[in-house]
Amino acid sequence: MRKAVIGVMGGASADERTRGLARRLGQLVAEGGMVLLCGGRPEGVMDEAARGARERGGFTVGILPGSDPDAAGGGIDLAVATGMGNGRNVINVLSSDVVIACPGGAGTLSEVALALKCGKPVVALGFDPGNGFLPWRGGRLALADTAEEAISLARGFLGRAEAGAASPEQLL
Amino acid sequence: MRKAVIGVMGGASADERTRGLARRLGQLVAEGGMVLLCGGRPEGVMDEAARGARERGGFTVGILPGSDPDAAGGGIDLAVATGMGNGRNVINVLSSDVVIACPGGAGTLSEVALALKCGKPVVALGFDPGNGFLPWRGGRLALADTAEEAISLARGFLGRAEAGAASPEQLL
Amino acid sequence: MRKAVIGVMGGASADERTRGLARRLGQLVAEGGMVLLCGGRPEGVMDEAARGARERGGFTVGILPGSDPDAAGGGIDLAVATGMGNGRNVINVLSSDVVIACPGGAGTLSEVALALKCGKPVVALGFDPGNGFLPWRGGRLALADTAEEAISLARGFLGRAEAGAASPEQLL
Amino acid sequence: MRKAVIGVMGGASADERTRGLARRLGQLVAEGGMVLLCGGRPEGVMDEAARGARERGGFTVGILPGSDPDAAGGGIDLAVATGMGNGRNVINVLSSDVVIACPGGAGTLSEVALALKCGKPVVALGFDPGNGFLPWRGGRLALADTAEEAISLARGFLGRAEAGAASPEQLL
Repeated sequence: MRKAVIGVMGGASADERTRGLARRLGQLVAEGGMVLLCGGRPEGVMDEAARGARERGGFTVGILPGSDPDAAGGGIDLAVATGMGNGRNVINVLSSDVVIACPGGAGTLSEVALALKCGKPVVALGFDPGNGFLPWRGGRLALADTAEEAISLARGFLGRAEAGAASPEQLL
Repeated sequence: MRKAVIGVMGGASADERTRGLARRLGQLVAEGGMVLLCGGRPEGVMDEAARGARERGGFTVGILPGSDPDAAGGGIDLAVATGMGNGRNVINVLSSDVVIACPGGAGTLSEVALALKCGKPVVALGFDPGNGFLPWRGGRLALADTAEEAISLARGFLGRAEAGAASPEQLL
Repeated sequence: MRKAVIGVMGGASADERTRGLARRLGQLVAEGGMVLLCGGRPEGVMDEAARGARERGGFTVGILPGSDPDAAGGGIDLAVATGMGNGRNVINVLSSDVVIACPGGAGTLSEVALALKCGKPVVALGFDPGNGFLPWRGGRLALADTAEEAISLARGFLGRAEAGAASPEQLL
Repeated sequence: MRKAVIGVMGGASADERTRGLARRLGQLVAEGGMVLLCGGRPEGVMDEAARGARERGGFTVGILPGSDPDAAGGGIDLAVATGMGNGRNVINVLSSDVVIACPGGAGTLSEVALALKCGKPVVALGFDPGNGFLPWRGGRLALADTAEEAISLARGFLGRAEAGAASPEQLL
């Protein structure tokens, strides 16, 4: 069976607290034997998460907006160059089993929304995407304050999917 | 000079009030001599907006998620078949000068977020995308209650862009 | 019923003869009441074809590789900004009812191949894409020496599709 | 430094000889410590190449046309779900350092052409893409009869790129 893929999204520019959350999250993804997928650029949340996973021996995938695989950050094991700009956000969420979103801007909100649209479970870590997303709260969208809590929620979503108790489409 | 393009987004399933807003919006886009761009399918907001524009002699473009141009609704003059599923949401916003979002689900929220990410002005008509989008309110994101108000706000955004008073990136 | 869409592909840099073929082709597309779709940039075959169609009152669509609709050439009525680079080549062919390819480079060959892959009829005008494409010759791929001949072949493909004598998939 | 990525393309339906070439190619990619990238589906060349790499302990990536990562074949370690159909062909070539094409149909020809367009070196293994591609022969496009020869040619391209003797764009 293929390994579970956790997509970590968030701002390309990030404050100290957010960077710390992303780093810790990457570590926990790796320690849990899961693959870390992110936006691949050497900036902000994606960079910290990849480095965190890498330093715990995890495997990291970067889905790049540009067309040059060598633009990936140092923590990326495999760079997928899409050349699609923000169009790659859909690929980020489709390729993840669970999306964990850290604080970010409009790009991060787009990934939360696209994940929900595509039937993927989402954990918002360290922020609240707002009351526009209330219809999915308690269903496919959960909030977490710590990286540990986010991973625990992600594992819950993965478990329900594997148990066949509910298809991703039914989690709402 | 090319005509301004107004992208009308919103739910594929829509209640009576929302359908009415979308229909009126399409009429006003056409009467204003602007091109109406939408998701192209014969459902909900996109269908009503296209039919509204068509019945006032406007030109309508549908950016389809699927690969068959003939899947476009009856109100569509030109169907662009992307074969990209929700990945086409980015094309919707990049090809629009202003995005007007009507009530919808996660797909509509993704288009609001992608538009803001891509530097496009957004008018939310008949709903509030929520406090997660507060950083853009008063800047690139405005709310409207009626189709008339939405068009007026869209014209304001277009005027500012043309005047060079601000590039789209500076409107936030 | 929606108008037939003729996709005209070919090199961004083009010699005098090729530019002449593309210009004439654009004129004939417009005179035939069909929509001209091209790559949208103000260069080579796409620019000439769009200008040819425009000067005969036709409607022209440009599917741009970049994310700025204002990068379209002067002959384009509607610019679709994909932000996908060469990924937009698939959209070019999916949105066309028939593809007419003029001389070009690897990008043009990719569009010939993608069109055949997607079940679209292709006319190669003024060049031969080579013996690698022999399996499709006499079926979905035809060669033409003049713009007039290319349009006549395109009309034949359109007629067969409309007659339901064969679905695009059966034309090989 | 990231590992070199070899993209193996070819038909979803393949005869015995082609399947053998693809299997052997996958083995050699893995033995050479390189990552194998393919179209990811459990069919034809992509399936054989992935299985060949897997049985020699290599890492395999599948860039899927659909939106379900679980549609990947059994030999795939990491599935990237694009939901873009044939539009993913561009991602295949952009994410590869060298493309090795095995016999296939129009989809494979499109990947050869897109790779050349995107500045990537291409080895055609076990077939000739035809005289339409003559301008790139001896430059960025080479032919091979055996999997061993294909890998040797790929290594030559990689070596030249690393030596900085030529950027990919200058190899034509």
